[in-house]
Amino acid sequence: MIEIGPLARSETLADAFALAAVEMHRAEGRLAELVASKVPLIHAVGAYLCESGGKRLRPLLTVLGCQAIGLHGDMSELMCIGELIHLASLLHDDVVDDAPLRRGRPAGHGIYGNAAVILTGDFCLAQAVLLAAKADYRAVKSLATAIMAMAEGEVLQLQQKGNLVTSREEYLEMVDKKSAALIAWCVSIGAQTVGNLDAAEALDQFGRGVGVAFQITDDVLDYGGPTGKAAGQDLRERKVTLPLLLAMERIPGLHARVETSKDADILGLMEEVRACGALDDTMAEARSRIESAVEALNVLAPSAARQALVGLAWFVVERTG
Amino acid sequence: MIEIGPLARSETLADAFALAAVEMHRAEGRLAELVASKVPLIHAVGAYLCESGGKRLRPLLTVLGCQAIGLHGDMSELMCIGELIHLASLLHDDVVDDAPLRRGRPAGHGIYGNAAVILTGDFCLAQAVLLAAKADYRAVKSLATAIMAMAEGEVLQLQQKGNLVTSREEYLEMVDKKSAALIAWCVSIGAQTVGNLDAAEALDQFGRGVGVAFQITDDVLDYGGPTGKAAGQDLRERKVTLPLLLAMERIPGLHARVETSKDADILGLMEEVRACGALDDTMAEARSRIESAVEALNVLAPSAARQALVGLAWFVVERTG
Repeated sequence: MIEIGPLARSETLADAFALAAVEMHRAEGRLAELVASKVPLIHAVGAYLCESGGKRLRPLLTVLGCQAIGLHGDMSELMCIGELIHLASLLHDDVVDDAPLRRGRPAGHGIYGNAAVILTGDFCLAQAVLLAAKADYRAVKSLATAIMAMAEGEVLQLQQKGNLVTSREEYLEMVDKKSAALIAWCVSIGAQTVGNLDAAEALDQFGRGVGVAFQITDDVLDYGGPTGKAAGQDLRERKVTLPLLLAMERIPGLHARVETSKDADILGLMEEVRACGALDDTMAEARSRIESAVEALNVLAPSAARQALVGLAWFVVERTG
Repeated sequence: MIEIGPLARSETLADAFALAAVEMHRAEGRLAELVASKVPLIHAVGAYLCESGGKRLRPLLTVLGCQAIGLHGDMSELMCIGELIHLASLLHDDVVDDAPLRRGRPAGHGIYGNAAVILTGDFCLAQAVLLAAKADYRAVKSLATAIMAMAEGEVLQLQQKGNLVTSREEYLEMVDKKSAALIAWCVSIGAQTVGNLDAAEALDQFGRGVGVAFQITDDVLDYGGPTGKAAGQDLRERKVTLPLLLAMERIPGLHARVETSKDADILGLMEEVRACGALDDTMAEARSRIESAVEALNVLAPSAARQALVGLAWFVVERTG
């Protein structure tokens, strides 16, 4: 059994990347090729998005998920699938949110227009499906299911926007669909393709926990962390996330004040959410998800890759941006 | 050998529908179920689009393609795949084109907003992929390739908008990707799934021709037919289609006048395009595509379904809306 505790947590993201450095480098090159349509505008939008960086957590989860069950060799195509779906969803989200910035640069739709951005998203989505079909028909089924969940999660969020009576269960369902489904797919896909169902189940469970914790942490960072997007955006849009849910449970009258808030009130309201301890308790929830996620890995034999997954999981809740 | 001539052309669309009436009815019910996400807003957008009708040519082509090679039984799921992709593309196009109307009713994005419409499109796309994966891994590969072609075709059109120096080859490449790729997939998918490669190749070729002719006819109808969209839209957007290409080849100075045209000039310019015979010659091109398409069916044994495909092909260029 792997030791879950201070030792495991001392792993850094850099260690995880180092373990898969060759694969990550290869996948980055493959990703650039995969968005290089012969149609110049698609190529331009795809390249713009690839070059704007990102943590590449999904390819990393894919390769570590493979290595943790003893799969090695060139898996760059498999690694690109989740990232292509992620890129497609960023492109569609840019139009959905109409956000001016993405990762600190002007969002694609501001430069290339909504139409090119939506259609390049469709192109990336189909490219990912094609790669999954080349890998394994089971990979396609689970991928399609994850894509449907993502769309449902996004729409659930959309429906809830401005509705301050969202429950914790509704919030968590939305987060699970929007963020965790794809992360779980990425980390378990290697096991799926070789039919190792026990490992696939464990890795899926790990990925669900990491994905939910990832999104919860994102929502906390919006109340103060140095993220790419302007902090306070969620509150400004009256988007109910766990920090606000907890704060409304604690501070009588906060609900009504958020409902009628103006731009000038946002900083003060954020300070109230922070001061009541809602952020700390939200992070405690995220950490508890990570603990369970890491525990799920116990069915796998100990390995450097399994250890790297543990480090990666803790990074998710310890990052500051 | 089937007789290609007046007899074949006397088939009507109603005959084709009658031949597959039970299957078409079943597929319509299945389609409604497939867009019925548990997320109410996705369900609403999907149902709105399903109820707004449409010719359901893609399910019809799928079932006739199956029957023409002797496949029978419940194929309603297979029939829904192409229609779901078509619906997804309509949803994304509504946002891309920002058109107020779709099939004579307010377009979905006007009622439900861009975000819900884009994401419901993604949901439909993933649902189609899931069905294809259930049917056959080969179906997924060719479907993903068709979806990529559609996105490329749409973006090619977008790039060309306002560029009056588009060549006939560029126009035809765009039309082949945008419209013909999915139609070819629909009519050949039955043959693909049973590994009947000769039939799949013939049906694919038939579908390509029908798809190109379908789009060419659409472009002619925009110069005068009673379509759902306001006639003259293409010219208003300086979208170069075959009628305008031919007219510009014939009328010296037309190019410059279209380039500087205002809304008030559109009716006069449309009349010029009609008067120079460009519409008749464009329709001749569409009919020649249909003739070749029908010829490709000669490798299949004669059957009522094959005959219905011939009727359907001619309907495509003979419809008035």
